[in-house]
Amino acid sequence: MKFNYKVILNVLGLLILLNGAFMMTCIPFSLYFGGEDFQALLVSGLSAMVIGYLIFALSRKNRSKELKKKDGYLIVTLGWVTMSLFGTLPYLLSGSIPDFTDAFFETISGFTTTGATILTDIESLDKGILFWRSLTQWIGGMGIIVLAVAILPLLGIGGMQLFVAEAPGISPDKLKPRITETAKRLWLIYVTLTLTEMVLLWAGGMTFYDALNHALTTMATGGFSTKNASVAYYTSPYIQYVIIVFMFLAGTNFTMTYFALHGRLGVVLKNEEFRSYALLTVLAATLTSIGIYKTMGTPLEVSFRDGLFQVVSIVTTTGYVTADYTQWPYEVILLLFVLMFVGASAGSTAGGVKIVRHLILVKNSVLELNRQLHPSAILPVRFNGKAVQKDITFNILAFIMIYVSIFALGSMLMAWIGVDFMTAISSVATSLGNIGPGLGDVGPVDHFGNLPTLGKWVLCMLMLLGRLELFTVLILFTPYFWRKV
Amino acid sequence: MKFNYKVILNVLGLLILLNGAFMMTCIPFSLYFGGEDFQALLVSGLSAMVIGYLIFALSRKNRSKELKKKDGYLIVTLGWVTMSLFGTLPYLLSGSIPDFTDAFFETISGFTTTGATILTDIESLDKGILFWRSLTQWIGGMGIIVLAVAILPLLGIGGMQLFVAEAPGISPDKLKPRITETAKRLWLIYVTLTLTEMVLLWAGGMTFYDALNHALTTMATGGFSTKNASVAYYTSPYIQYVIIVFMFLAGTNFTMTYFALHGRLGVVLKNEEFRSYALLTVLAATLTSIGIYKTMGTPLEVSFRDGLFQVVSIVTTTGYVTADYTQWPYEVILLLFVLMFVGASAGSTAGGVKIVRHLILVKNSVLELNRQLHPSAILPVRFNGKAVQKDITFNILAFIMIYVSIFALGSMLMAWIGVDFMTAISSVATSLGNIGPGLGDVGPVDHFGNLPTLGKWVLCMLMLLGRLELFTVLILFTPYFWRKV
Repeated sequence: MKFNYKVILNVLGLLILLNGAFMMTCIPFSLYFGGEDFQALLVSGLSAMVIGYLIFALSRKNRSKELKKKDGYLIVTLGWVTMSLFGTLPYLLSGSIPDFTDAFFETISGFTTTGATILTDIESLDKGILFWRSLTQWIGGMGIIVLAVAILPLLGIGGMQLFVAEAPGISPDKLKPRITETAKRLWLIYVTLTLTEMVLLWAGGMTFYDALNHALTTMATGGFSTKNASVAYYTSPYIQYVIIVFMFLAGTNFTMTYFALHGRLGVVLKNEEFRSYALLTVLAATLTSIGIYKTMGTPLEVSFRDGLFQVVSIVTTTGYVTADYTQWPYEVILLLFVLMFVGASAGSTAGGVKIVRHLILVKNSVLELNRQLHPSAILPVRFNGKAVQKDITFNILAFIMIYVSIFALGSMLMAWIGVDFMTAISSVATSLGNIGPGLGDVGPVDHFGNLPTLGKWVLCMLMLLGRLELFTVLILFTPYFWRKV
Repeated sequence: MKFNYKVILNVLGLLILLNGAFMMTCIPFSLYFGGEDFQALLVSGLSAMVIGYLIFALSRKNRSKELKKKDGYLIVTLGWVTMSLFGTLPYLLSGSIPDFTDAFFETISGFTTTGATILTDIESLDKGILFWRSLTQWIGGMGIIVLAVAILPLLGIGGMQLFVAEAPGISPDKLKPRITETAKRLWLIYVTLTLTEMVLLWAGGMTFYDALNHALTTMATGGFSTKNASVAYYTSPYIQYVIIVFMFLAGTNFTMTYFALHGRLGVVLKNEEFRSYALLTVLAATLTSIGIYKTMGTPLEVSFRDGLFQVVSIVTTTGYVTADYTQWPYEVILLLFVLMFVGASAGSTAGGVKIVRHLILVKNSVLELNRQLHPSAILPVRFNGKAVQKDITFNILAFIMIYVSIFALGSMLMAWIGVDFMTAISSVATSLGNIGPGLGDVGPVDHFGNLPTLGKWVLCMLMLLGRLELFTVLILFTPYFWRKV
């Protein structure tokens, strides 16, 4: 099978062009705050737009519009990589992150909505650059919505079909024609929620600039903050609770939010993934809060807020921090570590495994015991009242196994590169799950800047793998993919 | 479905009777070494024999000989628990382990061939009791062979069918009649290898008593030693290499050893699980040795021997120790930790996941990427040249997922009970994998005695779960099992 290189280039050109246009939106902030980043942003934005336009225009002629599945895989992975490459320009040209590895790490950490940072002093960055940093996450979040609704289900990735079956306006038999419309609707929710959060944070005492930045990175479940201390900088309980609510919303399947906004709360409350997501959050937050209250000596409300904030931040793979959780009791740390493998809802901007997959896994495990007793009985997993096709269940099991294997291999690789046990396993878990902070040397009050260069590249790869649901990237490394049929 | 309680009781009675008989074999050592444990052993042995005989005899009358699948599950789990309960008698009556929790932990750690110990001063035990401790492992190993060859495949547990298809004298269509014969053949190998190792160790300078004890616990991949320092006590390279070879053999599928002894080396060398087992051992030992050599400053041969010994000891789930590996570099510690999830070959006395399952997992993961591209193609996993039924692959994936879930839940539970992160995750990994030592507070130079009582019971449960291939035990906790059909 030959690839449709022209269309692939065409899409990539368009993405670079858009990337440049987004960079231009940072310029007002540079001008308003009088930073020294004006020139860097202008040059970056213009170069990206010109290069993007040229690629777009040159690949436009005589291109066949037909996209094959394989083209889809290439576009998704190359798209994210290209965006991340061009996204380094503002950092490099402004000199705010002079090292290429570091700049690429920061950018891909943005576009994958991970939120791991190599910066030691975030607040010293010019405001235009800092806005670009937040914007990469928000753009990444938009990308994820299209990916989840339109691309992954068509590519048949890891059970994402299950989620699409519920998206508004999508009926399984008429998937393609309505997909653009659905994506637009979900984007509208994404933009509306971002603006709402911004207003609420602004009203709570944040500056307009900080409110906007935090709203962008909350809704993307990204977690980049404009403050060195992350959200801990804001001691206002109101601000912290607002962020908790919006992190939770960002980790909710956007189609559920769509239904809720259209008054169809019944659909939401009956949805098994949403119920498990809410239940898990409440349960984990309760356990964590009790653990904090008992050992840290903080008042009840503070213990509850700190616990809830950190649980929601990790479950939704956002990665904001309001307390140094490495000081919390062991059982809480271990619980938070395990939560790094949860990954909120499919169809949200959250990374990681996703709750729907865990649900299918748990249900299938229980059924497998029943199948053991009755080998000839056909016992399909049921999700939201419907039988899940065996192939999809199989695919989900394979997904989780590959996830766990990559976690194990990645951890060993990181240890080999020269970091300690805790840093190795947590930097891999947090990168693969697109969360942000980890434990050990990459804990909530530390950063990723001191890791060996090779280690940073490994983590970049893991962020990409995790963000694109593993298969999309891994498939490019199989001989099957490049074989001519 | 009603259970055939009479047959279940009959088998359990027989097991208790045998347990008592085995206790009697410890008496000569008590007498020879003049310890104070004679009375305790005699009373324990006699009580077990009498109680066992009574149960056996009383349940014999009018019992239907027909065994249903559900009876099989009950017999296996209750069998191991009953043996472990009666096995505590010598410890309790002699006062060598006065606490019931500790005595039960030590006994089930023996019968499950785990090798985790609560003893601080092993060498202070009377020789009869110490022999009983080693014997529990050897008996457990015998039990595993029957289980692997005869019971689990019939119960359809976690892909064990794959292994049986290769057992000598077993053709899939005539499974039942020849199974006793096969078990006998494999036992003969087990006994022969044990005696051979004993002679070789004795010849290398161990006392007859120590040689016998170490041979018993090597072949069971158990890892109980008669020395506080484990095998590190024996500085002789000869002794250490002999133990390495026999640990490796004990972790080899016994049917492969059968074929090798009958001159059919070709079958062994073509067997995919054996090849992966050998390759993995060599690879991991090389990496470990390099890590030790580079950082510990030990001579090359010592680094190689220490690395090989520890890798083989952990991969085969034996758990002997010749060096404090917690002092080794991080990448080696992490590698050893990951190896705790390997578990040598199916059809050996090793615990854990088993290499055949990992193989199916890896193959299926690669195929899943291909299936992604060609959803309508039928692409079964191939093992030893044959297509593996989809149901079996499915079952294996479910097994591994349940294994990982239990590991995660168990770790959180242990942390909640009050141990630190490293101790929590490693005590669970080592118990579930039936290995023995872990990291942190349960490292190679430590013991399990200081864990909280509740934590010890959790680990007992995990040892049992791991040893009986999860499903056998878990199924008893489902409503399906107790539902009347």
